[in-house]
Amino acid sequence: MAIIVQKFGGTSIADAEKIRRAAKRVIRAVKKGYQVVVVASARGKQTDQLIADALELNPNPPRREMDQLLSTGEQQTVSLFAMALDAVDYDAISFTGGQIRMLTDGVYTNAKIKSIDAERIHKQLDKGKIVIVAGFQGIDENENITTLGRGGSDTTAVALAVALGAEECEIYTDVDGIHTTDPRMFKNAAKIEEISYDEILELASLGAGVIHTRAVGFGKKYDVKMHIRSSSEEKEGTIITHEVPQMEGVVVSGATVQKDMAKIGLVGVDNVPGNAAKIFACLANAKVVVNDIVQTEVSAQKANLSFMIGASDLPAAKKAVEGIKDEVNCERIFVRDDIAELSVVGVGMRTHYGVADKMFSALANAKVNIDSITTSEIRISCIVNKDEAGKALEAVCLAFELDKPAEERGRGS
Amino acid sequence: MAIIVQKFGGTSIADAEKIRRAAKRVIRAVKKGYQVVVVASARGKQTDQLIADALELNPNPPRREMDQLLSTGEQQTVSLFAMALDAVDYDAISFTGGQIRMLTDGVYTNAKIKSIDAERIHKQLDKGKIVIVAGFQGIDENENITTLGRGGSDTTAVALAVALGAEECEIYTDVDGIHTTDPRMFKNAAKIEEISYDEILELASLGAGVIHTRAVGFGKKYDVKMHIRSSSEEKEGTIITHEVPQMEGVVVSGATVQKDMAKIGLVGVDNVPGNAAKIFACLANAKVVVNDIVQTEVSAQKANLSFMIGASDLPAAKKAVEGIKDEVNCERIFVRDDIAELSVVGVGMRTHYGVADKMFSALANAKVNIDSITTSEIRISCIVNKDEAGKALEAVCLAFELDKPAEERGRGS
Repeated sequence: MAIIVQKFGGTSIADAEKIRRAAKRVIRAVKKGYQVVVVASARGKQTDQLIADALELNPNPPRREMDQLLSTGEQQTVSLFAMALDAVDYDAISFTGGQIRMLTDGVYTNAKIKSIDAERIHKQLDKGKIVIVAGFQGIDENENITTLGRGGSDTTAVALAVALGAEECEIYTDVDGIHTTDPRMFKNAAKIEEISYDEILELASLGAGVIHTRAVGFGKKYDVKMHIRSSSEEKEGTIITHEVPQMEGVVVSGATVQKDMAKIGLVGVDNVPGNAAKIFACLANAKVVVNDIVQTEVSAQKANLSFMIGASDLPAAKKAVEGIKDEVNCERIFVRDDIAELSVVGVGMRTHYGVADKMFSALANAKVNIDSITTSEIRISCIVNKDEAGKALEAVCLAFELDKPAEERGRGS
Repeated sequence: MAIIVQKFGGTSIADAEKIRRAAKRVIRAVKKGYQVVVVASARGKQTDQLIADALELNPNPPRREMDQLLSTGEQQTVSLFAMALDAVDYDAISFTGGQIRMLTDGVYTNAKIKSIDAERIHKQLDKGKIVIVAGFQGIDENENITTLGRGGSDTTAVALAVALGAEECEIYTDVDGIHTTDPRMFKNAAKIEEISYDEILELASLGAGVIHTRAVGFGKKYDVKMHIRSSSEEKEGTIITHEVPQMEGVVVSGATVQKDMAKIGLVGVDNVPGNAAKIFACLANAKVVVNDIVQTEVSAQKANLSFMIGASDLPAAKKAVEGIKDEVNCERIFVRDDIAELSVVGVGMRTHYGVADKMFSALANAKVNIDSITTSEIRISCIVNKDEAGKALEAVCLAFELDKPAEERGRGS
């Protein structure tokens, strides 16, 4: 019998009514002949409440105790979910991470999965039971409870799909799938029917945020078919899968804007070996994550260096570079926090030319100035003025026809 | 180093402020040189909320899932308690029932403890840590979570005291100890300084309800010194211990009134072998718990039979005896639900005469009519009219000087 894993996020099971609705999804899969494993997150704002309770007692709570505390949220949901299924005469059994020996390393609040006891789950499925597993949590080898960090329940679901050899991993959420761009910024954004792991990894890290990067990485590694879909609507959502031939016909799959970032530039740094290393060592010590580093030579002796950081890291990053300024003989530091990064992503870029040209032309026609450009194999990103980001995104979406389903693009409107 | 177990009930740790106050109790014991093991219940009304959440989804939730759900309440408290200690630089570690292998039988919602891994706790204590254990919960041999039923955290505490060889088991609660009677019914009730397991067992089952019978039974079996005391006040509470010689000097240790009961009488039952058995088999089938059975012969052929039940069982009990009435040739059934049971308890009764006489005289002087009387080795109980119960209790308390500390009694006022 084929196995399906269904994961329900916090908003999809926030109250009794929503748990009952989620249970109906499960029953539908059972009626189709699947053995079903459910992964559930904590209900709605439960985790936030627990964090608040913890911080009231200790502004810096020990991580082990934080995991011990937070794991209760998912434990509550899975038992309630099993009760909801029992109420309509479906036999279900709930498990904590520890009960299925979801073994992780010992890194509290951000643990990595090492192994899962699939046997215990198979045994229950073969008895005809629906198995409900608490997401987000595991145990280390000393039976301490660990949690998997942000988006951890997605990771649990994909890991279970791998361990159980599931046919598909459905991720139920409060949107109906992944769109070509954020519908709040471009209201005609089309829903994507099928997208590759690589594309979603670029889109997720750029802020699409529907599914956690780590889960997608896991899915890619083990080739798990993932289906992002709405918990309240019937229709199909977005399938994330390995790259299939027809994807190459779609040049650009999606576009994103990331606004919460800043740029720091060091002008006229002495162009001698070791200076760049010194600067980034300084930033690493200050725990600042750096992206999109660009160095340009301005003369035989001098270079300019710039990089992007998260806006919240700006104070720490400024302090760090000001501390190193004299040592690298930097003439001037500039900071921009009025910028945004606009990106287009598509595996089709590998085989199509003219993507960059089309993007830059669209921005030029919309009179958007481009501060700088970076690219990867399947992504082109432009830094633009933050207050022009909306206009820029719309111009790019229209240029690449991201308001239409993939198969209708390039046919004119 | 001597070990002390400190148990905090739900009202003693209902919010951050109270958890901090409880933590101070722990620290005081540490400063006195004890290794401290804390047992914590769920916070305040948490368990009630979880039960309500469950019933909203399923009026008859599977017991395994109920235990999986309810055990989260204690798990939350212990991690928060550890955080509170960490905040004031005391090193603490929390454990669920499963983590210390509190092994129970598989009777969900009412499991019995089989063994505890004391080694894991000793190891942490020897590292200088305060160990916080979730009360009320264990696991069965298949790692399913079980709970110990009502008053389960008291039982956890006493069981840990036994397993660890603790010097004392302190039970912190919202009263300052056990009183000679319920202070709400007799405001001058004196606090008892020391009382035997047997007396408290009689008082608890009669409704004193400060500590759970099962925990006291456990304490008696393994001779654990228990100390019931206030979580908000400094003073000593009530010590429960094995019978010590000076207890015999105290004739009556306490008095209770139990109001939520009813009496059923079967008049003129055929006095032939097997009839009583038939009647009580019927009641057992109806799951009615029966107490204080009295049978009296009225003639060679006929007997009267009466017994006490909990008031909530009255409808089921009535139905049961009406069903058997003709078979045992009973002439008439009577029911009284306007009654209360007044009891006095004391190990001193074993060696002192005149206790019954003193009680009946006090009731006669107060013009309280006695419906019936039952006794055990250390208890005398009278059934009285419910509306005379308060007057009756006061008369008995004054007769036995239950408004004075034990050592001052019999000296006149």
